[in-house]
Amino acid sequence: MLKSTITPLRWEAGALVLLDQRRLPAVEEFIRCTTYEAVVEAIGSMVVRGAPAIGIAGAYGVVLAARAAFASDPKRWREALPPALAALRAARPTAVNLAWAVDRMASFIAAQNTDPMADLLGEATRIHAEDLAANHRMGELGAAFIAPLSRLMTHCNAGALATAGYGTALGVVRSAHAAGRVLEVFATETRPWLQGARLTAWELHRDGVPVRLITDGSAAHVMREHGVSWVIVGADRVAANGDVANKIGTYGLALAARAHGARFMVVAPCSTIDLATASGRDIPIEERPGDEVLSLSGARHAALGVSALNPVFDVTPADLIDVLVTERGALPRPDVRSLAELLAKPPT
Amino acid sequence: MLKSTITPLRWEAGALVLLDQRRLPAVEEFIRCTTYEAVVEAIGSMVVRGAPAIGIAGAYGVVLAARAAFASDPKRWREALPPALAALRAARPTAVNLAWAVDRMASFIAAQNTDPMADLLGEATRIHAEDLAANHRMGELGAAFIAPLSRLMTHCNAGALATAGYGTALGVVRSAHAAGRVLEVFATETRPWLQGARLTAWELHRDGVPVRLITDGSAAHVMREHGVSWVIVGADRVAANGDVANKIGTYGLALAARAHGARFMVVAPCSTIDLATASGRDIPIEERPGDEVLSLSGARHAALGVSALNPVFDVTPADLIDVLVTERGALPRPDVRSLAELLAKPPT
Repeated sequence: MLKSTITPLRWEAGALVLLDQRRLPAVEEFIRCTTYEAVVEAIGSMVVRGAPAIGIAGAYGVVLAARAAFASDPKRWREALPPALAALRAARPTAVNLAWAVDRMASFIAAQNTDPMADLLGEATRIHAEDLAANHRMGELGAAFIAPLSRLMTHCNAGALATAGYGTALGVVRSAHAAGRVLEVFATETRPWLQGARLTAWELHRDGVPVRLITDGSAAHVMREHGVSWVIVGADRVAANGDVANKIGTYGLALAARAHGARFMVVAPCSTIDLATASGRDIPIEERPGDEVLSLSGARHAALGVSALNPVFDVTPADLIDVLVTERGALPRPDVRSLAELLAKPPT
Repeated sequence: MLKSTITPLRWEAGALVLLDQRRLPAVEEFIRCTTYEAVVEAIGSMVVRGAPAIGIAGAYGVVLAARAAFASDPKRWREALPPALAALRAARPTAVNLAWAVDRMASFIAAQNTDPMADLLGEATRIHAEDLAANHRMGELGAAFIAPLSRLMTHCNAGALATAGYGTALGVVRSAHAAGRVLEVFATETRPWLQGARLTAWELHRDGVPVRLITDGSAAHVMREHGVSWVIVGADRVAANGDVANKIGTYGLALAARAHGARFMVVAPCSTIDLATASGRDIPIEERPGDEVLSLSGARHAALGVSALNPVFDVTPADLIDVLVTERGALPRPDVRSLAELLAKPPT
């Protein structure tokens, strides 16, 4: 099995250990979370980011919350949990994987009677391991669409760092590269957090995949002038009708891809699909502080008095998506029916 | 006449004085150029930028070159000029205003017999004054398209700082705002140089125009969610068929505008129209060092070993342009015929 050398999170000695992605690539530093509050803070402040990865972190966060509640009151620990579950669920609003994982852990808790720790940790570990397996399966399924000598483009970071460790979009890139089909990957830098520059370029370069960084604004020009055949991105939530919320800028890339005959692939595990959200209009779009746009590394570059609007996700309508790759199969032009059928299938 | 309080360049005491735009908005510092070589360096290193502004700077650069040549050899000074003219012309490749201004000065020189200084300075000053007058005329013509209660979007800086002092795109914004028609302007930050954040937001805020900064990647989302009616940009070169080279990212904005029914306005003086360039394919697109993308304020944020592709202009095809505003009139859907007719008209 192909591997990435990058692991954004692990459970170790009773704590959730997170690679601090805010400091990459300059510094590889880990943060140990021993309380659920620390996990909420780490998710909100982007120590860990990427829809699948924050889902996994949320699952371990539930383990930490249950451990503290059980230690405090072994009989009534369940009753103390709802505020912790709500806080974990709300740590970031757009990626549904977080709510999905917390809810899955909550259902599991409801079925527990005795000391829950071993079983809860087992369930969180399953969520973690299933995501890694899903990444590899999606890598294979997605790479099958990539022809030899392809130039690809990706946005933000949907890589090892955003998942259990292989990547959604970058899992497909890794598998296609291993199959010898990738000439080059263009990574958009992805303002304001520069996940493309700091994380994606780092991941791909480290794993030997040829990558060039571009500004977000140059994507349409690069598609036209450099013959990009596929734009490949991850997702934070796929609505029931196939609309996709992903990092701000994804929608503009999808419009540009359609204008140039580049195809547009979204790669996301089924935990990202939310049939309870009818369409993209119903997906909450996180807005973060304007200061993330007005300043760089703490130094303000915009004029004082100027404000910024900082939505950090956008919605790409389903009709701009050529294929949605999940671990249960690839859906060309996903829609209400095909998504419902996919989720009704038993997991392989 | 409406005025901007911002003057990016002036001739003073025998020198070209440039506002150092690399340091704005933190520091307002001026650089005095007393040789044409200093002007070439200032244009190349982006002390002064913006197509009309570098044209004006180039014209004064010719004055400085002629002064030095005349001082060195009052009889054969003209023969010493070609290398200086070539260097000024080549200081940056994409904006045709630079070549246009240098060529206009060169034609003027060819008609001079005696000590050229007073006359040459007169011609450079005319280029300078004509640009300011053109800005104001374009402001009026463009503002006529803006309905009351409009939300506008602009890219990079096509403002006072990019021109003699009122702006092309921002001239239209200023005039529309003065007419009470502007609810808000969204300024894209414009990586990698952040002209939107550093220059446009500063200019508009200083002149009391409501402005919010956005990342380049959020433009399509903001158009859809915030009801932008016009995207208004400047230009570095308009080809004979109406294709427009402008700051990287413009093309993606034009695609997004078309997808949302926002209209797309290009504002440029006739000195930006280059009938000798048949189409956008023939416009040289400057690529600047990758380090502008890989680093911020001198600090590298991208992983070592990663390279970047840094094209700093792109081409928007004529069919995405709803109106081209020049000082001689506004052309809906500019094409070969309408552009040729426009330039054949006598200047008003």
